[in-house]
Amino acid sequence: MLGNFIFYNPTKLYFGDKAQENLAEAVKPFGNKVLVTYGNGSIKRNGIYDDVMKALKEAGKEVVELPDVMPNPTYFKVDEGIKCIKVNEIDFILAVGGGSTIDYAKAISVAAGYDGDPWQHFWVEQNDPAPDAKIVPVGAVLTMVGTGSEMNGGSVITNHKQKLKIGKVFDSRVFPKFAILNPKYTYSVPKHHMVAGIFDIMSHIMEQYFSGDDDNTSDYIAEGLMRSLIESSRVAVKDPHNYEARSNIMWTATWALNRLIGMGKSQDWNVHMIGQAIGAHTDATHGMTLSGVSLAYYRYIMEGGLHRFARFAKVVWGINPEGKTEVELADAGLIALEEWMKEIGVATEVSSLGVNEGNIEGIADATFGMRGGYKQIKRDDVVKILKSSL
Amino acid sequence: MLGNFIFYNPTKLYFGDKAQENLAEAVKPFGNKVLVTYGNGSIKRNGIYDDVMKALKEAGKEVVELPDVMPNPTYFKVDEGIKCIKVNEIDFILAVGGGSTIDYAKAISVAAGYDGDPWQHFWVEQNDPAPDAKIVPVGAVLTMVGTGSEMNGGSVITNHKQKLKIGKVFDSRVFPKFAILNPKYTYSVPKHHMVAGIFDIMSHIMEQYFSGDDDNTSDYIAEGLMRSLIESSRVAVKDPHNYEARSNIMWTATWALNRLIGMGKSQDWNVHMIGQAIGAHTDATHGMTLSGVSLAYYRYIMEGGLHRFARFAKVVWGINPEGKTEVELADAGLIALEEWMKEIGVATEVSSLGVNEGNIEGIADATFGMRGGYKQIKRDDVVKILKSSL
Repeated sequence: MLGNFIFYNPTKLYFGDKAQENLAEAVKPFGNKVLVTYGNGSIKRNGIYDDVMKALKEAGKEVVELPDVMPNPTYFKVDEGIKCIKVNEIDFILAVGGGSTIDYAKAISVAAGYDGDPWQHFWVEQNDPAPDAKIVPVGAVLTMVGTGSEMNGGSVITNHKQKLKIGKVFDSRVFPKFAILNPKYTYSVPKHHMVAGIFDIMSHIMEQYFSGDDDNTSDYIAEGLMRSLIESSRVAVKDPHNYEARSNIMWTATWALNRLIGMGKSQDWNVHMIGQAIGAHTDATHGMTLSGVSLAYYRYIMEGGLHRFARFAKVVWGINPEGKTEVELADAGLIALEEWMKEIGVATEVSSLGVNEGNIEGIADATFGMRGGYKQIKRDDVVKILKSSL
Repeated sequence: MLGNFIFYNPTKLYFGDKAQENLAEAVKPFGNKVLVTYGNGSIKRNGIYDDVMKALKEAGKEVVELPDVMPNPTYFKVDEGIKCIKVNEIDFILAVGGGSTIDYAKAISVAAGYDGDPWQHFWVEQNDPAPDAKIVPVGAVLTMVGTGSEMNGGSVITNHKQKLKIGKVFDSRVFPKFAILNPKYTYSVPKHHMVAGIFDIMSHIMEQYFSGDDDNTSDYIAEGLMRSLIESSRVAVKDPHNYEARSNIMWTATWALNRLIGMGKSQDWNVHMIGQAIGAHTDATHGMTLSGVSLAYYRYIMEGGLHRFARFAKVVWGINPEGKTEVELADAGLIALEEWMKEIGVATEVSSLGVNEGNIEGIADATFGMRGGYKQIKRDDVVKILKSSL
């Protein structure tokens, strides 16, 4: 049953192979000094950097650059961004990159206006910015698909000193004001990262879907998104320049995590919690940490959500339920998931990510177990799940 | 393939059986003088009027009332609203009702700031408001479900003098700033109007879905919405106070026509065009005009979109394709649609709406045929479709 909720998502999305033509117009309202933040500089090789600088020049902006945002952006790097915003009196932050870069831009947009310890206040204690908080507006040019960060308030930051990777979901004031979504901008992403992104999307959908057993429109939308993603991912791994497939994947990613399919329903999110703990200990690619733990996790909790797992098998994977018990049907759905994961080439066991007997206890310590799923997960459950995936 | 598009939908939705508790907070930012517009006064009998007035009082607003908005709101009534806004120097319009009332509020919100002939300019010539146009902001309290007007720019107005019913889709400046969506507010809607609304939703989805034969995420989302709507409608017709079903129907309605499932794809919309022409000639309930013409229309165009109609049968209605030709499968989908329509009790022929040999030609004259569907519909096609449904 749909519970009470507020849905408000004012991010303006420019989608398509001509999306960047809107950038100059999109940044115009946001003040003169623009901080352009990006990753390792691949955008200088594939032409995206040039597109962005041309648009900012056209809009008459003064540009400051902050490169070298790493995958799994660190709190150390956030500190650098805070100083950069203050010293340069930045009016607007333009993140050019994937989820890490956009998450980072949101982090510094909020942290720069907070006088205390932002890590402790926003990430550890999960506070929201004050009603009158100064938040530097953010825009995004997406170059890698998966996290959905382009249309939400999520900001996952890793603190290496504390061995913690924590996601904070900020309110709509922190959502990107706009995002430029050009599927062709994702063509040059290496296959490893493309498929990790695809699994990140699938995981976002599954972690909202595998909770509750009521009749809820959100779950039907989730099924549609999963069916589209599976179809398009199969095309994209064989033909990464297939525009239709890449555009469907990009659009699915945005709607997988902009709050829509979680509205009014309980959610799980333990795969992300365990995955983030693995990430903090191994620095493995985010999507791979999720795929690595998913099969073990869902098999561990399946019994508590049998109806939903059976529905997943039937609706999402098209498995004929005739002649199968509910358990057999549910099992068949997870087997289909596993086969698809192998087909697209993502990790199916945590051992491949650098998880071993030596760090399992530390990962379990760093996992914040969430309520809301089909089974309440405690520390020893995390250990069991990880061990079953070695 | 997803084409280039901009998605921007800044309407804030408050959903649930406690949604109205947010009304005072939601109206606060919008100036002192609030015009409350509503229909025939049923809101005074079911308590919604009292909820609204209490919230406006709490927010310290000065209230002007404009009742008696009719189903299929007329341009004559729009004129009254324009005068009312000017005389009372209205800052904000709160529409309390269904699609007709909200469409009406949007119409007067734009028309009051335009110096020329608003009917000719916005509806007949389909112009957009000027960049610096004065638009009175609108909010909505939804009491009847179907049109999706609570989260879009649509405004359908009927001009009786000209025997025209025309929809104008305004840009995001005209979207409601917020909408209060309480499923319980829809409980007292008579069954005739409830099921007409349900078919209106189904029609919105089908008219975006039955176009193109590419692989497009939007169509997968549409299938999810249709599956949810069919399921919930079957519960709601038997048990109108079933909160789960009514809330799913309400939520589906919003997402069926807030642009999401039409993004980047071709669309049809001829059922609405013919339905609106029927409405202008008969004043029949909007959803019934759509249901009345749909079966005849889709059977008329089916051949041109055989793959999609077969997919509709398989995915939306769960029909087993084994042993069926594509035509047989597509046919079976439309038979399932027809059976469902009879089950929930909507019109399946235009004859039941007052269409007859005498007014068919006039209806065909008043129909604006749209391109984008599986068959280009001209005037004589409309006549054939209507005749086949007598």
